[in-house]
Amino acid sequence: MKLTEKTISSQMLHKGKVVNLRIDSVELPNGKLGAREVVEHSGAVAVVPVTASGEVLMVRQFRYPAQKELLEIPAGKLDPGESPEECVKRELLEETGMNAGNITKLFSCYSSPGFSDEVIHIYLATDLKYHGQQLDEDEFVEIEKFKFDEIVDKVYNGTIQDAKTIAGILAAVNKR
Amino acid sequence: MKLTEKTISSQMLHKGKVVNLRIDSVELPNGKLGAREVVEHSGAVAVVPVTASGEVLMVRQFRYPAQKELLEIPAGKLDPGESPEECVKRELLEETGMNAGNITKLFSCYSSPGFSDEVIHIYLATDLKYHGQQLDEDEFVEIEKFKFDEIVDKVYNGTIQDAKTIAGILAAVNKR
Repeated sequence: MKLTEKTISSQMLHKGKVVNLRIDSVELPNGKLGAREVVEHSGAVAVVPVTASGEVLMVRQFRYPAQKELLEIPAGKLDPGESPEECVKRELLEETGMNAGNITKLFSCYSSPGFSDEVIHIYLATDLKYHGQQLDEDEFVEIEKFKFDEIVDKVYNGTIQDAKTIAGILAAVNKR
Repeated sequence: MKLTEKTISSQMLHKGKVVNLRIDSVELPNGKLGAREVVEHSGAVAVVPVTASGEVLMVRQFRYPAQKELLEIPAGKLDPGESPEECVKRELLEETGMNAGNITKLFSCYSSPGFSDEVIHIYLATDLKYHGQQLDEDEFVEIEKFKFDEIVDKVYNGTIQDAKTIAGILAAVNKR
């Protein structure tokens, strides 16, 4: 079966700071017309930073769309022209103050492929050396440190509620 | 440190079929003003359906925002007033044709908490009985079946690129 949907026309509704929103008219596999809302995003990275003693550095921050604080692995948007590896090193340093001697890719994923093109590249970082937190002026995060077992418990008891964090942590556990 | 961001005003830019988009003016923890784009979504479920022989049923579909076919666990949006458990049973039946005798919650997560309030409730389904696929008229998916080990390999080799699928599969593997 041919599953592809063909773009007929495209209308940009909003060009914003973090996201754009457009609506496309598409031809469905059965030849009928449909509409697709697409939230455009420039892409992001996330990183599971593991200390020499086997603990994971996490960041607590208020997530406005969720209207609550979430406990997540460090993450951030790609700057224009920046490679995912460069972005991982920059975000890790900014948010946790750590330089990573070793960075390995875990996987890349679409966060919400039903309505957004956002791709998150997820890495494991080890051989960490403290250099000094360098948060942006308007960035407010707190660092917390947990053992892998504690974090996995926090997934199942509902304390950790961020998809990229759950996927990244479980992938790191699975690889160990 | 106080991390909360307080809403000052809110402007709805788009009310759509799958998402709404609004921009809120907020007071940041340091007292300065900022803007937050919020993609509103009604919430969704996803389910890891495991057969008696230990294989996972997955769906292949064209994801327009990603402009490619993705291999995912069955999932779908919550209907108004529908509980996550009801939605899991409905989506599993519609997409794979299976009734599940046993459904257990794995976790709930925000797919993209930086810009969206979408929550996905992820379940494990076992004791499957075939009843017959009941796709919506404009829904086009193909069913594929894999062992857990095969799926985990497909995460690390880049074949599986959907965040909820990676999180759900790894959580199911971790629980076994």
